[in-house]
Amino acid sequence: MPNANKVKTIAVLTGGGDAPGLNAVIRAVVRTALGHGLKVWGIKNGFGGMVENQFIELTDSSVAGILPRGGTMLGTTNRDNPFNYPQTEGGQVVYKNMSAQALDNLRRADIEALVVIGGDGSLRIASEFYQLGLPVVAVPKTIDNDIPGTERTFGFDTAVTVATDALDRLHTTAESHHRVMVLEVMGRYAGWIALHAGLAGGADCILIPEIPFKLDSVIAKIKERQQRGRQFSLIVIAEGAYREGGEMSVSFIVEGSHEKIRLGGAGEKLAREIEKLTGVESRCTVLGHVQRGGSPTAFDRVLSTRYGVAAVECIFDGAFGNMVALQKNRIIRVPITEIAGQANNVTLDNELLKAGRAIGICFGD
Amino acid sequence: MPNANKVKTIAVLTGGGDAPGLNAVIRAVVRTALGHGLKVWGIKNGFGGMVENQFIELTDSSVAGILPRGGTMLGTTNRDNPFNYPQTEGGQVVYKNMSAQALDNLRRADIEALVVIGGDGSLRIASEFYQLGLPVVAVPKTIDNDIPGTERTFGFDTAVTVATDALDRLHTTAESHHRVMVLEVMGRYAGWIALHAGLAGGADCILIPEIPFKLDSVIAKIKERQQRGRQFSLIVIAEGAYREGGEMSVSFIVEGSHEKIRLGGAGEKLAREIEKLTGVESRCTVLGHVQRGGSPTAFDRVLSTRYGVAAVECIFDGAFGNMVALQKNRIIRVPITEIAGQANNVTLDNELLKAGRAIGICFGD
Amino acid sequence: MPNANKVKTIAVLTGGGDAPGLNAVIRAVVRTALGHGLKVWGIKNGFGGMVENQFIELTDSSVAGILPRGGTMLGTTNRDNPFNYPQTEGGQVVYKNMSAQALDNLRRADIEALVVIGGDGSLRIASEFYQLGLPVVAVPKTIDNDIPGTERTFGFDTAVTVATDALDRLHTTAESHHRVMVLEVMGRYAGWIALHAGLAGGADCILIPEIPFKLDSVIAKIKERQQRGRQFSLIVIAEGAYREGGEMSVSFIVEGSHEKIRLGGAGEKLAREIEKLTGVESRCTVLGHVQRGGSPTAFDRVLSTRYGVAAVECIFDGAFGNMVALQKNRIIRVPITEIAGQANNVTLDNELLKAGRAIGICFGD
Amino acid sequence: MPNANKVKTIAVLTGGGDAPGLNAVIRAVVRTALGHGLKVWGIKNGFGGMVENQFIELTDSSVAGILPRGGTMLGTTNRDNPFNYPQTEGGQVVYKNMSAQALDNLRRADIEALVVIGGDGSLRIASEFYQLGLPVVAVPKTIDNDIPGTERTFGFDTAVTVATDALDRLHTTAESHHRVMVLEVMGRYAGWIALHAGLAGGADCILIPEIPFKLDSVIAKIKERQQRGRQFSLIVIAEGAYREGGEMSVSFIVEGSHEKIRLGGAGEKLAREIEKLTGVESRCTVLGHVQRGGSPTAFDRVLSTRYGVAAVECIFDGAFGNMVALQKNRIIRVPITEIAGQANNVTLDNELLKAGRAIGICFGD
Repeated sequence: MPNANKVKTIAVLTGGGDAPGLNAVIRAVVRTALGHGLKVWGIKNGFGGMVENQFIELTDSSVAGILPRGGTMLGTTNRDNPFNYPQTEGGQVVYKNMSAQALDNLRRADIEALVVIGGDGSLRIASEFYQLGLPVVAVPKTIDNDIPGTERTFGFDTAVTVATDALDRLHTTAESHHRVMVLEVMGRYAGWIALHAGLAGGADCILIPEIPFKLDSVIAKIKERQQRGRQFSLIVIAEGAYREGGEMSVSFIVEGSHEKIRLGGAGEKLAREIEKLTGVESRCTVLGHVQRGGSPTAFDRVLSTRYGVAAVECIFDGAFGNMVALQKNRIIRVPITEIAGQANNVTLDNELLKAGRAIGICFGD
Repeated sequence: MPNANKVKTIAVLTGGGDAPGLNAVIRAVVRTALGHGLKVWGIKNGFGGMVENQFIELTDSSVAGILPRGGTMLGTTNRDNPFNYPQTEGGQVVYKNMSAQALDNLRRADIEALVVIGGDGSLRIASEFYQLGLPVVAVPKTIDNDIPGTERTFGFDTAVTVATDALDRLHTTAESHHRVMVLEVMGRYAGWIALHAGLAGGADCILIPEIPFKLDSVIAKIKERQQRGRQFSLIVIAEGAYREGGEMSVSFIVEGSHEKIRLGGAGEKLAREIEKLTGVESRCTVLGHVQRGGSPTAFDRVLSTRYGVAAVECIFDGAFGNMVALQKNRIIRVPITEIAGQANNVTLDNELLKAGRAIGICFGD
Repeated sequence: MPNANKVKTIAVLTGGGDAPGLNAVIRAVVRTALGHGLKVWGIKNGFGGMVENQFIELTDSSVAGILPRGGTMLGTTNRDNPFNYPQTEGGQVVYKNMSAQALDNLRRADIEALVVIGGDGSLRIASEFYQLGLPVVAVPKTIDNDIPGTERTFGFDTAVTVATDALDRLHTTAESHHRVMVLEVMGRYAGWIALHAGLAGGADCILIPEIPFKLDSVIAKIKERQQRGRQFSLIVIAEGAYREGGEMSVSFIVEGSHEKIRLGGAGEKLAREIEKLTGVESRCTVLGHVQRGGSPTAFDRVLSTRYGVAAVECIFDGAFGNMVALQKNRIIRVPITEIAGQANNVTLDNELLKAGRAIGICFGD
Repeated sequence: MPNANKVKTIAVLTGGGDAPGLNAVIRAVVRTALGHGLKVWGIKNGFGGMVENQFIELTDSSVAGILPRGGTMLGTTNRDNPFNYPQTEGGQVVYKNMSAQALDNLRRADIEALVVIGGDGSLRIASEFYQLGLPVVAVPKTIDNDIPGTERTFGFDTAVTVATDALDRLHTTAESHHRVMVLEVMGRYAGWIALHAGLAGGADCILIPEIPFKLDSVIAKIKERQQRGRQFSLIVIAEGAYREGGEMSVSFIVEGSHEKIRLGGAGEKLAREIEKLTGVESRCTVLGHVQRGGSPTAFDRVLSTRYGVAAVECIFDGAFGNMVALQKNRIIRVPITEIAGQANNVTLDNELLKAGRAIGICFGD
């Protein structure tokens, strides 16, 4: 891995929601870069830190001990797009394009390349900056696993692990009490967490945004189990799943430039309907943010490390404008522009989905 | 431990909500009794199984491998009080006193003593049966730790462990995002889980039913932390905590003979108020039933085993009408009648509460 | 997945060492087969059960609740090859070919196809039976991940997770005490566990059987860290790793037809040498069998389920003599004969190995 | 908790072996002291840091985020007794009394009171310093739980949890393979870890230093299980357990002033003997240092926090020369001199031991 591009100074930032493995990527970027004699800046609090000039130098000591830790040592935010940046003027918040300021800040710190670790939103901003000439490399992060071009995003395995652990716990209660237990997991548009955790945790029904579910199918599954002497059922539902013909569980309010998502309580509603229609006690647990924090699994730490190293390799090769990605068990490079605005969803011919059907899981269709 | 009472046949049942350690108690009861040549019946689905004559013989094989498993191999239920038992007559549910039927079923199976593993509600029923002459011994179970007469109920350590693990996960997200994270834990009337998990998980505020909180105190704590450069805060709130002067979060509807609890979403409300008053993004996670299921901790398995053995010792000694209890690191016996209707709450002079104050935790007062 | 082959009765067995996920495969095989109206026999205690006619019918109830459990409900053994089967004659153990007896037992139970879940040794036996005309399908199991033709065997992710967790624990002791901590993990011939766990657990040196190590390199790494103010180091060593020019840590004694492995205590020796040469206190932990037991990770449960379903699909398609395998994130089929006697080792151009070097890990070369 | 003693500056150090919860105690000491306006010094690397003048000021920021972390942020060592301190003179190590130097260093930093967090050895040193006039308060730390005067030392619950988790994992392998699995846990002189983990993990035999075991009893237990159809057994053995009439597993070499312990491989020997005498495959796992590192359990974090607060309370009350201790669920004070040289061992009338016997566990006698 020679530094053909003779880069001397790089920066790294983390954008968007928290995901287990962010620190592991940062550590790999820093250690790889330092190993080649580069200087590395960390930009604090996502793209906002580019505008606000919040740079800290990252050394070997800065990243010591961070591998197993959740969160990001650099801070992050879901807001603060430099192309539409909130500024207070006369007591009011107005949104301005501060991208030139952000680029200028990088230039003054002699930063020649930027590693952006982020999800959908961050990739779009990275893509815009790239088109303005900034040498950018991206690392795909989202616990939802819905970024196209890569088989896995880091953070996903940890989220699935947390959800599976919750299912194991709910299982014993469901069984002891002859109840229906509903677990609502993350996944606004993509059902990957629900699909994997449902398979791993022995769910009887898995409901995902990609397959609008029929309540009748769910009820039929519960009754079929009762007839076989199984007095309990476990249901995993993605927060964005919705009933056929019904409204989607996830809706939006746009406030200023910020989307705010209003969740519909998909799981809670479902539990109430099941209880009414079957007479079986039903309870819902919403797992929420515990899925996105905490120490990453071994799998995610390895993947994060591979991504971090590969991102610096891109810089050495001058391969800018790319996202590093996992395909066929190898790290490859995918142009960010090919990904922007795209999504990676569960399709009906997905092998895991079919395996789920084969062992008798109901997907609500 | 000689069987001075010459009992030959006993039975065991689990009543009320699921708690990690139920199987461990059953195993200890069965193994101790079999070791003395007794016959042991398991009564299925709590007190309901007494009425319905759902008895199964428990052997060494029945309890093999159940020690680490959550739930109860006997099934349980929160309903089905034999003294007020639901029966369908002419398409309508009516409630009748079926206690004589229940006692008769025991008698016909030659059951000379009954071990009841249960919480508040089960202890009340056990007490009634005892007063009718049934030789009963009780084992205190509740994840809430609010049964008087004992320093610890089994299941509590596991619930605290699950809640602490969630706090560890939320901590990294709170820190990375500069957010307030609110964790709502179980505890309708008693704040033990919140108190212990809050101390173990590094909470900044702990809000419990015993101390109606002032919103101002919570806000002041968050702001004081901001001034010290801590951009995030962690808050643990028991489901039954409520604001001073406000309504309690937990209210009741009585339906037939069954109390139904309507929870007020204490945590969610609090998060919204904090966000409004401080401008800091705030998120709530409701941990729910994952606290009461799953494999018990080592601590709970040891405590459950001690309780199970001690319950059979009571039978051998003819010490009926007692609950086994932990006091001063020893298992002792407490008359059930002394406990019935009583509660064990966090008091203001509680040592853990004071330790929490000493390290700067805000309790909302 | 139509049953084109019109098979009516199948059997499943687990052979060789324990691995987390065995029960998950059995469950998927049984549920998929039952869903198509097949009868399923479980053969107890590996291939030995074929000879001894130890068959039990597997129903929906047999596999209820086994998904999260380690071990195998069918029992297994590392010995008992029907082609060289131990028999006591005149007080002495002699080895005989009992394969005809085994096949006969299957025939009498109308078993038309056999699913073998096993590692290297079991695959060889399966291959022999296949060549004798038995319709066999294999599922690759080994915590070592060294079966060729598949990117992942089930059980591997769990073993890596256990080893990583141990590294996290050792890390804090190493750091507090300024010590060298050596962790010896499984891997007689292949270094996959050491490589993955070492990356995930932040090891400074990773020593694997594929790269005979120079003690000087290890010492140099420890000293280089000291010069940077890091008073501790973490080393992961596979049990089969050995010093350049030295003897391999793993040697064999052949007893009857049974290989017996004598392990050389690779980790313990290394720790002593490091302490002598550097003066730094060094301690070794041998993780041993805790790596191969217990509840499988979510990843392994999903993979196991996919394998189980795919194995039954092979039967429906009449695609016998195959092992199901994971390649490029899909389940494919690989002829068993292509795999027999082959191994899957870490090569010098392995991407993870190179990523490890990039972040400064010493591989002893 | 008024500071009646008007202390203005205190120090804290951690001595002896690593134990989960050290950081939690430090945090509680620092936060409590800072809350009263004190200045707090941390002494690095145990008592050695007193001699070497390695003091760092501890602020609110120093202890942020350390609660869940294993190890000690201050460093520690098993050596370096100031009363017999290693010094290199003319290329040779000689041992000198450097206590005056140590005290002088404290005085020059205006340190008025010292909190010593440590085990047996550290308490002895603390006691000597106290007798020289240093206002000392001690916090009992050892994963072995063998300090007298307190029902629990912190770190113990975590060690038991790690050992129990290992037993759960070994259980499935033992059962699948019809093997005897031996787990060797820490405990040179006291069998508390073995006793608790054995009860929690469902061991069939528990062998502890306090009860020299008869091999015949162990073999008889294994055979009795076989006769009941249990083809496997689980044995927990403390590292210091030994066979009746045999040598103790733990012996000592005195080097300079340092005891060095030579462990006899109690578990490995036992496994070999069992295999020889029963013909059942037997395997041993030595858990080692993973028991003493890593994130503390919720229980240990709460206990550590209580201890830390109580230690500072002692200082405010001028109650020097005491160790804080847990008795009857309260934190009390015990004079260090009463404890020095004493041990807390499992006695034959211990309630847990008797509960173990009641459920059929063999203790080797």
